[in-house]
Amino acid sequence: MKTEKQKMMDGELYKPWDELLVKEREHARRLVRYFNATKETEYEERVDLIKQLFGSTGEKVYMEPNFRCDYGYNIHTGDNFFANFDCVILDVCEVRFGEHCMLAPGVHIYTATHPVHPYERIKGMEYGEPVVIGNNAWIGGGAIINPGVTIGDNVVVASGAVVTRDIPSNVVVGGNPARIIKEIDLTNPM
Amino acid sequence: MKTEKQKMMDGELYKPWDELLVKEREHARRLVRYFNATKETEYEERVDLIKQLFGSTGEKVYMEPNFRCDYGYNIHTGDNFFANFDCVILDVCEVRFGEHCMLAPGVHIYTATHPVHPYERIKGMEYGEPVVIGNNAWIGGGAIINPGVTIGDNVVVASGAVVTRDIPSNVVVGGNPARIIKEIDLTNPM
Amino acid sequence: MKTEKQKMMDGELYKPWDELLVKEREHARRLVRYFNATKETEYEERVDLIKQLFGSTGEKVYMEPNFRCDYGYNIHTGDNFFANFDCVILDVCEVRFGEHCMLAPGVHIYTATHPVHPYERIKGMEYGEPVVIGNNAWIGGGAIINPGVTIGDNVVVASGAVVTRDIPSNVVVGGNPARIIKEIDLTNPM
Repeated sequence: MKTEKQKMMDGELYKPWDELLVKEREHARRLVRYFNATKETEYEERVDLIKQLFGSTGEKVYMEPNFRCDYGYNIHTGDNFFANFDCVILDVCEVRFGEHCMLAPGVHIYTATHPVHPYERIKGMEYGEPVVIGNNAWIGGGAIINPGVTIGDNVVVASGAVVTRDIPSNVVVGGNPARIIKEIDLTNPM
Repeated sequence: MKTEKQKMMDGELYKPWDELLVKEREHARRLVRYFNATKETEYEERVDLIKQLFGSTGEKVYMEPNFRCDYGYNIHTGDNFFANFDCVILDVCEVRFGEHCMLAPGVHIYTATHPVHPYERIKGMEYGEPVVIGNNAWIGGGAIINPGVTIGDNVVVASGAVVTRDIPSNVVVGGNPARIIKEIDLTNPM
Repeated sequence: MKTEKQKMMDGELYKPWDELLVKEREHARRLVRYFNATKETEYEERVDLIKQLFGSTGEKVYMEPNFRCDYGYNIHTGDNFFANFDCVILDVCEVRFGEHCMLAPGVHIYTATHPVHPYERIKGMEYGEPVVIGNNAWIGGGAIINPGVTIGDNVVVASGAVVTRDIPSNVVVGGNPARIIKEIDLTNPM
């Protein structure tokens, strides 16, 4: 029989009040609290805390406070990851970033979701869908990435975009819901 | 003659620099500061502070930090209220939630507004319009609810939606401005 | 030969890891940290810190915590400036406000941007474009102002709007991307 954590990781309905999950969220929130309390010159402390918090990272990783997440261990970044002020990642399922990804201020990435039917929802069960973000992504300020979304390589998400569907590689998307605004020609040097 | 607070509560133009209102905002901000400084295991302290801050609540109520509001006493929740990280409620007029409402991270609910005419606005007078949210609402991450909006029962507001008009019961809304995306069939178990 | 700071101020590609720029950002983040740690009754401390942080202000200026910015010295406000909770201004180039400007909660103003071509972007060079906001602006909650935007006088930006282009005077704009919703008749007293 699956544990609640296994169900969560597998994208099935699970009970978020499960004792182990509560403890794991407390652990992540403690690290996040330490992170958000660091000073502007405590670069090494910040990097150490991010590497303790996240499931895996490349060598170069940096974030500005305040950061928020649920478990931390479901967040995996490539090398050269940067998140600016006030980003939120609800990682009940995996959030995987490729190399060289940058998040502008206030980016929210959600894997957590709830049943749409109200009588199901108010029972308190939740589930998640993983998010995958390719190499060289630039997620603009205040953008939102919804559960289950996969984003290709070299994508620019415009500020304030709400990404509700998968995005192919080499495009700029924007709007609510986000649509392709233009294709990026990789043979064009700028 | 009405006090500035009475004018505020009644949705009339009022002076926000009124001495009583300044004191009441300071009181709310103090409680909010204590709340935002609680640790991840201080569940009872959080619940106590929410119950001190809000006008009324059901038994079960919980929020994650950081929370922000203006007065607190104009916020009324039913039982089983949950607000995730970084929600903001500007409660110069009443904000009433039904039972079983959940706010995802970064939801902003505004009752506070200003005259559109610039010469009126820069005099500093403000006014508010109440917000009503029915039972079983799920307000998605980063959604904004504008002053004067009434939302029915069982509504799902998609992440990033900007709700500018009243919403009937049993629908999913999304977009900016928010429009009905689909109807929820309550006879369908999922 | 231009310093990296001169390039930044002039809107050219620059290296954000330049030693002087790192020191200047640390200085601004220190003041911002002090500001965000002030208590709700420390009005004078807040005003003092804003005046230390910003390039220039009028006499009356106020913000609610948390505030975030990059350098501070590129932010110039007229008299009677107000910013509510959780505003973010990325000021790698100048952000100029006229008189009587008010920002609702969660407004983000960006001058910072990156090359759209991924191979250029991942080299780490950045550039900025200035933002100009006229007199009597009311920027609604959660609105985003993009790099290079100029906004006229007496403009109302609706909550959640994403402003990607210049806005003339005397209009209300909203949506993502923001469009003119209505003209404001200044001869109409309300």
